[in-house]
Amino acid sequence: MQMRLKAIASFLAVAVMGVFALVLFSGSAFADADIGNGETLEGFKFVKNVMIWFMLMLVAFLMIFIKKYEWSVALAVLLSAAGSFIVYMGMHEFLFNDVWNQDLMLMGVICAITLVIAIGCFLGTLKMWQYLLVGFLFAPVFVVFELIMFGVGNIDSVVSMLGGAAEAADHGGSILVHMGAAYFGLGVAIAIREKRAFKEPMYTTTHSVSFVWLAAMLLWVLWPAFVTALLEADQFAMGMAVCYMGGIGSVISAWLVCTIVQKKVNPLIYTYAMLAGPVAIGAPLIMIGPWAAIVIGIIAGAVSALSFIFLHPLLCKKLGALDVMGVHNLHGVAGWVGAISSIIILAVSADAVALTESTAVTNLLAAVLVFAVGLALGALVGFILKLTRGSYPDENMFSDDIDFIKSEAPANE
Amino acid sequence: MQMRLKAIASFLAVAVMGVFALVLFSGSAFADADIGNGETLEGFKFVKNVMIWFMLMLVAFLMIFIKKYEWSVALAVLLSAAGSFIVYMGMHEFLFNDVWNQDLMLMGVICAITLVIAIGCFLGTLKMWQYLLVGFLFAPVFVVFELIMFGVGNIDSVVSMLGGAAEAADHGGSILVHMGAAYFGLGVAIAIREKRAFKEPMYTTTHSVSFVWLAAMLLWVLWPAFVTALLEADQFAMGMAVCYMGGIGSVISAWLVCTIVQKKVNPLIYTYAMLAGPVAIGAPLIMIGPWAAIVIGIIAGAVSALSFIFLHPLLCKKLGALDVMGVHNLHGVAGWVGAISSIIILAVSADAVALTESTAVTNLLAAVLVFAVGLALGALVGFILKLTRGSYPDENMFSDDIDFIKSEAPANE
Amino acid sequence: MQMRLKAIASFLAVAVMGVFALVLFSGSAFADADIGNGETLEGFKFVKNVMIWFMLMLVAFLMIFIKKYEWSVALAVLLSAAGSFIVYMGMHEFLFNDVWNQDLMLMGVICAITLVIAIGCFLGTLKMWQYLLVGFLFAPVFVVFELIMFGVGNIDSVVSMLGGAAEAADHGGSILVHMGAAYFGLGVAIAIREKRAFKEPMYTTTHSVSFVWLAAMLLWVLWPAFVTALLEADQFAMGMAVCYMGGIGSVISAWLVCTIVQKKVNPLIYTYAMLAGPVAIGAPLIMIGPWAAIVIGIIAGAVSALSFIFLHPLLCKKLGALDVMGVHNLHGVAGWVGAISSIIILAVSADAVALTESTAVTNLLAAVLVFAVGLALGALVGFILKLTRGSYPDENMFSDDIDFIKSEAPANE
Repeated sequence: MQMRLKAIASFLAVAVMGVFALVLFSGSAFADADIGNGETLEGFKFVKNVMIWFMLMLVAFLMIFIKKYEWSVALAVLLSAAGSFIVYMGMHEFLFNDVWNQDLMLMGVICAITLVIAIGCFLGTLKMWQYLLVGFLFAPVFVVFELIMFGVGNIDSVVSMLGGAAEAADHGGSILVHMGAAYFGLGVAIAIREKRAFKEPMYTTTHSVSFVWLAAMLLWVLWPAFVTALLEADQFAMGMAVCYMGGIGSVISAWLVCTIVQKKVNPLIYTYAMLAGPVAIGAPLIMIGPWAAIVIGIIAGAVSALSFIFLHPLLCKKLGALDVMGVHNLHGVAGWVGAISSIIILAVSADAVALTESTAVTNLLAAVLVFAVGLALGALVGFILKLTRGSYPDENMFSDDIDFIKSEAPANE
Repeated sequence: MQMRLKAIASFLAVAVMGVFALVLFSGSAFADADIGNGETLEGFKFVKNVMIWFMLMLVAFLMIFIKKYEWSVALAVLLSAAGSFIVYMGMHEFLFNDVWNQDLMLMGVICAITLVIAIGCFLGTLKMWQYLLVGFLFAPVFVVFELIMFGVGNIDSVVSMLGGAAEAADHGGSILVHMGAAYFGLGVAIAIREKRAFKEPMYTTTHSVSFVWLAAMLLWVLWPAFVTALLEADQFAMGMAVCYMGGIGSVISAWLVCTIVQKKVNPLIYTYAMLAGPVAIGAPLIMIGPWAAIVIGIIAGAVSALSFIFLHPLLCKKLGALDVMGVHNLHGVAGWVGAISSIIILAVSADAVALTESTAVTNLLAAVLVFAVGLALGALVGFILKLTRGSYPDENMFSDDIDFIKSEAPANE
Repeated sequence: MQMRLKAIASFLAVAVMGVFALVLFSGSAFADADIGNGETLEGFKFVKNVMIWFMLMLVAFLMIFIKKYEWSVALAVLLSAAGSFIVYMGMHEFLFNDVWNQDLMLMGVICAITLVIAIGCFLGTLKMWQYLLVGFLFAPVFVVFELIMFGVGNIDSVVSMLGGAAEAADHGGSILVHMGAAYFGLGVAIAIREKRAFKEPMYTTTHSVSFVWLAAMLLWVLWPAFVTALLEADQFAMGMAVCYMGGIGSVISAWLVCTIVQKKVNPLIYTYAMLAGPVAIGAPLIMIGPWAAIVIGIIAGAVSALSFIFLHPLLCKKLGALDVMGVHNLHGVAGWVGAISSIIILAVSADAVALTESTAVTNLLAAVLVFAVGLALGALVGFILKLTRGSYPDENMFSDDIDFIKSEAPANE
């Protein structure tokens, strides 16, 4: 206990220093950067679309550590992504009269990846067909999030606003995607309130966890594609620098916190918390330079690891629902770090306000609304899912046996 | 049995509705699309080359589910890709006087991936050095396929014809690549006629199958690079939309069919059949919009899953040869779905004919020729392989022990 | 023994023929190539940055074959990459007054990947926090390598020199990256001189090795991004052709040598030696065409496989230090093949000298200096590491138990 207090105290010290450093650094490096020629291309958007779909699939492998519950995670990810992408694109085509282009498809896969993150909160507590249903139901929720963030209706206006309208500044999705995913997911989990999830043991194997390492490391690598998805080419260099430096920050701080607080590293905490930096630099993305990014990454990685260790058991107990994959500890908590960072910077820097055409108040409002609306609509969707679920499962939870033929018989019989 | 009939009947109903929907949708969404600025770049072609090589390697991991036969699959893929790429490029440089550029290299890796798909029909029935040999022998076969599809001789004329000459319309390779691979592979398997393959048990493990999930999901993601490989930039957006929507169709329908017909999902059927949509949208690629694509994907995923369940055992028995990886159920059958879709659309839509400068008759002829020539040349190559094989294997089939040191001794001894 | 002599003799014959073929082919195919329009883009550099970070993570998976020592490798890679990237970028910003742009970040990740390769020589002999330390210490070493290769101080001058100044020709990094990594790593290993590493058994499993196959095959695929990182667009096509043909050469020759010399293939030799071609074509990259590349690849793959089999045990014994992952057999030996190839070509071809503005003497000097300085600075860093290490480990070596919670307890308890 003594040790834990020491850890937290030293962490807080770092955090306070961090905020100072943040403000200190947040103008300089950006101004220095040589940011290229500004071209944007069909070919390049094509690659970003592919990279973000790639990340979506990797999220599945981030969640396959339960050795008897691997393939079901993969299938649930595929079905929920399919359902949400179809409905999102259909809504934009038929309700908002948007045309199909690569920007709209980028928003479509971002909608899908938001859901894929969110289902981590309640994976294993639904029937398989319900992951398709939750896809259908989530797309309208994401459109509400878009409305909160920048007013929706026409993708062109969305994109142009992302480029600087007087709306929330969240170019890398800390609020829209990560907080949206975490609180929608928690809302669903609370409504389903599956007590049995607490009791079902989740055994891992060396290699089920090695797949998680692979997924975490490759997600870390591909992350700049995500945060720069809708930026102009003259912001690519700095977006990438901020993203990787944020990621380096959490790679280091998550390891430090795991080692200091628990003596040895829990790989299922580290592989998640090492991604907290890229989550957190999403909101302040275009307001900061690489050295401020590494500070934010350090803070986010530390806070995320501490959340896994201390907050997670308390929160789940209080809510009466297990956040199965610990989504909130990464996306919720680091999403807040990103939102709060952006609010602080907007509050103290007139440059940042001019650059983003957003204000501290707008960003605060956006974060609070996504938090509250996410929880509420998540609970509503969770209620529908609970109603339509029936009794489930008859067998052990978190088991591929429920949906898959796992016979020991050879494949060619 | 009753249940199976019901499944097939309901599937046929979907198929008929599908054809109507197909025709209905096949003009609209395409006209609406905002398709960008038309630039094509060395840099972008570079990325596509890399992506298709990436897919080629993933095909190896799609086939490593037999736990004692993993590394041999990887090595066989490497050797057959190496052999076919060298000879293909050499033929184009020295016989047809083509220059090396990124378009020619794209055709080279497409040749190699076609063979890598094809060897799935007879993996485990050859000596390891013969995978290099089959690479050498396949490149000329692929050139014959090119001749059938659009007349070969000079890669520039090939590319320009892909962009609209009065040749078969198959921009995404349903006929050239997938049918070519399946029927060449079946031809080889029939000639080798390795009866022992039926009897050798193919045990899997959770993680050998998890590698297959990884490969299938990432192949699905990278597929747009393959179908748009030789398109102009103003067709990227729509090509990607059609590819992903086709893929979403088969993600859903393959799961439905597996669940309805077999109660639980066989992962080695699902991970293949979920790719049937991207296979099938290859031929009608530039004639359709995203909503027609999802219909074709649904049909292809269902037909492919049904083929694994019902057609595969019958066909293999009749042929006297095991299609080891079930290549025909994915690439053959879904290739036909693509070819037939394109023929129907070309038959009913003057727009499609104008757009592709192909006709229903041309596409029908191309599909039938690739089918017949593929089988015939496959059988010829299989005959050569059988002659040069000698007695093989002395040990159990489908075993890494044949070619690898798999001692339990530590790696540093 | 007799057989070994035969193998070596036949290899030497191939090598001699190879050198002739090399000179013969090294002009022709290059002149024929249609090399595109020369555009370079922010978007494309973005993708290359991501691809090289992707490769860096894959290098971790190339080294996780010891079944009880997988996660530690991943964490060590993350920490050493983080440390070296920060310090490299910081040195360039604050010492050399360079601005952050995508070219500088490319050099930053190339510095990091060089270290990640190098730690393979001494993985498992350090405390975990020391991988961060070695990152901090390596960045200045890499700057010294840059100084040797092309004079450092301002990244713009670096890039322009890569494009043709009178400096060493090593566009694909055979000398700078691969020899630099191997000899720095060996230097560290010699200074640490951890005798216990020889005795600790390194058991593998089928799937720990299958991860290595995955990593090797995807590294092979992504390699063109690495060797063309700082080239102009009009050199992409030829750079890719040379890289893949070099890779095809070593895919074939490494398999031949393993099979001929050891009867069966040792997968931990093959998966490394199959990458020797791409290592070796780095120095002569822009001087040769694809057919010369395949010859160099064949030589490099054979030499690398032979080094694993014959040189490795002798060298490690003589040095008194185990090269844990066999880094020298791939990067050191094939790096020399690349350096020597470039020296021969520069010596015999006035065209190559004109094209690269380098000479045989410059390249010879660069290779010898990187070799000697790498060893010396590696030994210095190794000395610091040994001093700060204390007693390590108390437990078995090469074990995840040292740094990780590997309890059999379920993940949700």
